[in-house]
Amino acid sequence: MSATEFRASLDDMRFVLFQQLKIQEALAGFEVYEDFDQDVYDATLMEAQKICEEVLHPINIAGDKEKAQFVDGGVVTPKGYKEAWNLCAEGGWIGVSAPQEFGGIGLPNALGLAVNEMFSGSAEAFSIYMGLTGGAARDILAFGTDEQKATYLEKLFTGQWAGTMLLTEAGAGSAVGDNRTKAVPSGRPGVYHLEGEKIFISGGDSDLAENIIHLALARTPGAPAGTKGLSLFIVPKFLVSEDGELGERNDIHVVGIEHKLGINGSATCTLALGANGPCEGYLLGEEFKGMKLMFHMMNEARIGVGAQGVAAADAAYQYARSFAVERIQGPDLDDIANPESRSVEIVRHPDVRRNLMTLKVMSETMRSLLYRLAYLMDVSLHETDEKAKKKAEGRVDLLVPVLKAHCSDKGFEMASLAVQVFGGYGYTTEYPVEQLLRDARISAIYEGTNGIQAMDLLGRKLRIKNGLLFMDWVQDAQKFVKKAKEAGFDEADDVGKAVGHLGATAMYLGQLAMKKQLKLAFLQASPFLTMFGTVLLGIEALEQAVVAKELMETEGETPLLKGKLLNLRFYTRNILPGAVAMGKSIQSGDDSALDASLWPLA
Amino acid sequence: MSATEFRASLDDMRFVLFQQLKIQEALAGFEVYEDFDQDVYDATLMEAQKICEEVLHPINIAGDKEKAQFVDGGVVTPKGYKEAWNLCAEGGWIGVSAPQEFGGIGLPNALGLAVNEMFSGSAEAFSIYMGLTGGAARDILAFGTDEQKATYLEKLFTGQWAGTMLLTEAGAGSAVGDNRTKAVPSGRPGVYHLEGEKIFISGGDSDLAENIIHLALARTPGAPAGTKGLSLFIVPKFLVSEDGELGERNDIHVVGIEHKLGINGSATCTLALGANGPCEGYLLGEEFKGMKLMFHMMNEARIGVGAQGVAAADAAYQYARSFAVERIQGPDLDDIANPESRSVEIVRHPDVRRNLMTLKVMSETMRSLLYRLAYLMDVSLHETDEKAKKKAEGRVDLLVPVLKAHCSDKGFEMASLAVQVFGGYGYTTEYPVEQLLRDARISAIYEGTNGIQAMDLLGRKLRIKNGLLFMDWVQDAQKFVKKAKEAGFDEADDVGKAVGHLGATAMYLGQLAMKKQLKLAFLQASPFLTMFGTVLLGIEALEQAVVAKELMETEGETPLLKGKLLNLRFYTRNILPGAVAMGKSIQSGDDSALDASLWPLA
Repeated sequence: MSATEFRASLDDMRFVLFQQLKIQEALAGFEVYEDFDQDVYDATLMEAQKICEEVLHPINIAGDKEKAQFVDGGVVTPKGYKEAWNLCAEGGWIGVSAPQEFGGIGLPNALGLAVNEMFSGSAEAFSIYMGLTGGAARDILAFGTDEQKATYLEKLFTGQWAGTMLLTEAGAGSAVGDNRTKAVPSGRPGVYHLEGEKIFISGGDSDLAENIIHLALARTPGAPAGTKGLSLFIVPKFLVSEDGELGERNDIHVVGIEHKLGINGSATCTLALGANGPCEGYLLGEEFKGMKLMFHMMNEARIGVGAQGVAAADAAYQYARSFAVERIQGPDLDDIANPESRSVEIVRHPDVRRNLMTLKVMSETMRSLLYRLAYLMDVSLHETDEKAKKKAEGRVDLLVPVLKAHCSDKGFEMASLAVQVFGGYGYTTEYPVEQLLRDARISAIYEGTNGIQAMDLLGRKLRIKNGLLFMDWVQDAQKFVKKAKEAGFDEADDVGKAVGHLGATAMYLGQLAMKKQLKLAFLQASPFLTMFGTVLLGIEALEQAVVAKELMETEGETPLLKGKLLNLRFYTRNILPGAVAMGKSIQSGDDSALDASLWPLA
Repeated sequence: MSATEFRASLDDMRFVLFQQLKIQEALAGFEVYEDFDQDVYDATLMEAQKICEEVLHPINIAGDKEKAQFVDGGVVTPKGYKEAWNLCAEGGWIGVSAPQEFGGIGLPNALGLAVNEMFSGSAEAFSIYMGLTGGAARDILAFGTDEQKATYLEKLFTGQWAGTMLLTEAGAGSAVGDNRTKAVPSGRPGVYHLEGEKIFISGGDSDLAENIIHLALARTPGAPAGTKGLSLFIVPKFLVSEDGELGERNDIHVVGIEHKLGINGSATCTLALGANGPCEGYLLGEEFKGMKLMFHMMNEARIGVGAQGVAAADAAYQYARSFAVERIQGPDLDDIANPESRSVEIVRHPDVRRNLMTLKVMSETMRSLLYRLAYLMDVSLHETDEKAKKKAEGRVDLLVPVLKAHCSDKGFEMASLAVQVFGGYGYTTEYPVEQLLRDARISAIYEGTNGIQAMDLLGRKLRIKNGLLFMDWVQDAQKFVKKAKEAGFDEADDVGKAVGHLGATAMYLGQLAMKKQLKLAFLQASPFLTMFGTVLLGIEALEQAVVAKELMETEGETPLLKGKLLNLRFYTRNILPGAVAMGKSIQSGDDSALDASLWPLA
């Protein structure tokens, strides 16, 4: 392979899915998955790989240069996007883990997220259109009436139509409660007329599908202020007749698109609703429950953004290692005193190996975390034992903000590290890493900035059931650490200590909150999330090593399995110590940034 | 001010120059600076500020979109670049710290670097042309014959001509010794014919000045292999007659330019030498001393790149704080339970304050380090006491790689943090932070990648005089820590401990090297540099706090002075603990990345 071509990390994906999580056994008991086995999962991965490598990666590079364009009041996607969309639609990739009765393939989320990772890694901008379509459909699946499901689901999951989510307004970004778009009853039951302007809408318009189904937050007359007064509406681009045929154009129009750092193939739209005529919207779920419904969609979207982070890190790793085994530069250090020494492949240089090792361990542990959460989603959806179901649900709830923020932060960092491995070449458009860097930067911002994730973790997730969700995680983590220690891993001690530090740090922040020192506590929200993420990935590294060691005993050593033992050593000695330092920083109680003398208002 | 306009941080610059380093007194004893006083320095800063804010920043934004273009075999710079060049040339800004006898203004480097920081912050791409011109001139100043000085210096320092440096070739990037460009004696004394191709040459061609003076590394016939066989040549674009008039076009031609992530106004050229006729070059200094001469220029260039990092961090800080006091979003945490609460300026939110504080402390401590090194350069050049001169020289030598790498790494990180403060807006081209992010990414790559800086620090600088250069720094640092402790700063203990850890870590790495475990030692070169940088900035924070406290006692409290005390608290509690963790990681002796099972060659 070359340092310009995308390659999916199929072997490592298989390791996580089939040897670590063992989804082919763990999910076999669920009725919805009884038709599937490892062969089906494997064939799916290979088919996705083929599309990503052969179709999506080429349009990703070209689409970045061409960009989505705003032409004659509509969005024109880059060359090849439409064909790729049709291919993905026909192949069932938009509804890969959607129910079969609504046109989906019905595969587990664990597999769906693996596919999602590949799509993001090969073509982030393009895959955003797919992700939002699936997300909008799943919200209708969860909360729609039978009629709404019948009208929209199959067409969305099969890609005949596309979907979006409309939250942000110029004055309402992180503060969703400040949404001002109005929804006035039209007189016809369930039908409202929407009026307002939404910004930063990914895929807000496109030429990919014949219709677009927007899910829009808006405020009904007399609704309370803030998030409690928001309702969610289905707003189609073209109205749909009772027999499902497309009718009149609805008055929702793109009025401009953003010029951006990256994901240039993905149109980021400003949409005007009801500016020139009625914009019909149909209430989804109950009035004033818009936030709850939006969060259902948002939770999935955040896992998807976590997948983008994993994808960016892995693509960064694969490009960097390909470059490092090809690029010849400078003599081997062992040969440095020899005046006749020749330049060697840069993979032989320790500093490059350190960068590659960082890329490897970060991408592999993040993948492990991502697939685990996806697997837990499957459990939370289909487990019949109520206790186990609730536990899985709670675990996903707790960890989603950490996955979203930590993986997106690290995905960007890893993209930057790959640029560094390429040196001057990495800064040019000749290699794909500069685009990767630009594209990866969005993930820390959208679907709730990482600052918002940190506040969600500290202010909501840690408080759920008086902290029991978190304490349950700590206990499970310590149980697992003990098991790993018994399996002969000294590194388990380091991980266990880090978990202990994390618990103590959470306790400290909880006490600040009880003492009403909210600002002091939230000053440490982001460091706490990063600390949590750092510990979580340490646990993933430990579990992967435990699994690898067992497999090596039965199946012998392979580079992949040995690599997992090396990952654990590298992570616990080079990365995990940072978590302990973060814990100390957080518990220092430093309030210097809150000092009133800083940054007075104009 | 608005969040889109560049503003130089004049107050903080003045604090460092006039209250912390007190250059108006410290340099007053040097004959070369006897005509200058604080008023002159101050007027210079204000004049530079004006140019940066009014002229350079506007062309920076426009130039990024327009980009340097390769047209009809030459480089056309973006609109406004030529006018800005003329303005800077006439104002003496290219030779601001060059000797007056050669057309310079003759100001100290301490002031020159402050000006440099402003120019980089307002227009990095444009200022690269200026920096390279001054750099080439100073190399001729240091090593040229009287005739060469007379021919080139004044024209370079006054911007009538521009200058460049030609090191990199397709097969010789980090490994300069693999340079293959040939220099064959022409028959005329001192005149050679050069033949080869150079890549990644910043300002390799442009329409800014009437001539370009290239300094090119090349290999004479029979020269030894590697760096020891390299010589440096002056290669003008247009030959220069004895009376200084421009003559024939020399056969050095730009054959293409790179398309890049950023610094789009700066042409990154591929140059062909002697492809279609003789390319005349004149030996600079002695044959085979090319590396030494190039390193003289390189050392200054690396300080300039450090200045770019400071500039990026400061610009990031200024944009972010301007945005944060204007942008209204979400209620104040103290008001969160009030259903009537209104959205407030985001500067009131703790997570935003934490980001701003990080931006503030990083940019201000990096500035402090930069100006200190610049001041030490002045001492090393003009001090008459030989011991003091040597000490200053050694200190600059030791710290240059740390300044270059740490400030460029952190400059990029801070640009990314500013993007985060802007949220979705930061990802659009509507605000200047996305360009800042792209432009800032180059600094970790060029003038020796940061990996090369780390190897220089560990492999060369730490070994000089058997480590005495470093031990001397440690002793001075501990002496200062003691003084700060006596001045009542408890944080001095934290800084002192960190210095101690750094010393022990250096010792550990030195022992590895003595045991010939070179690869194991160099695996930790980059973390060691980052640890050093983190400690260095802690010392700067401490010194600034000591100075501020003294001033507060005599002059009363000001936000700037109080901010220095807050900086110290924030840095020692939130950032410095990371250095201790790095020390532990480095000393863990982890060699996992060296395992032979990883990344086999194809």
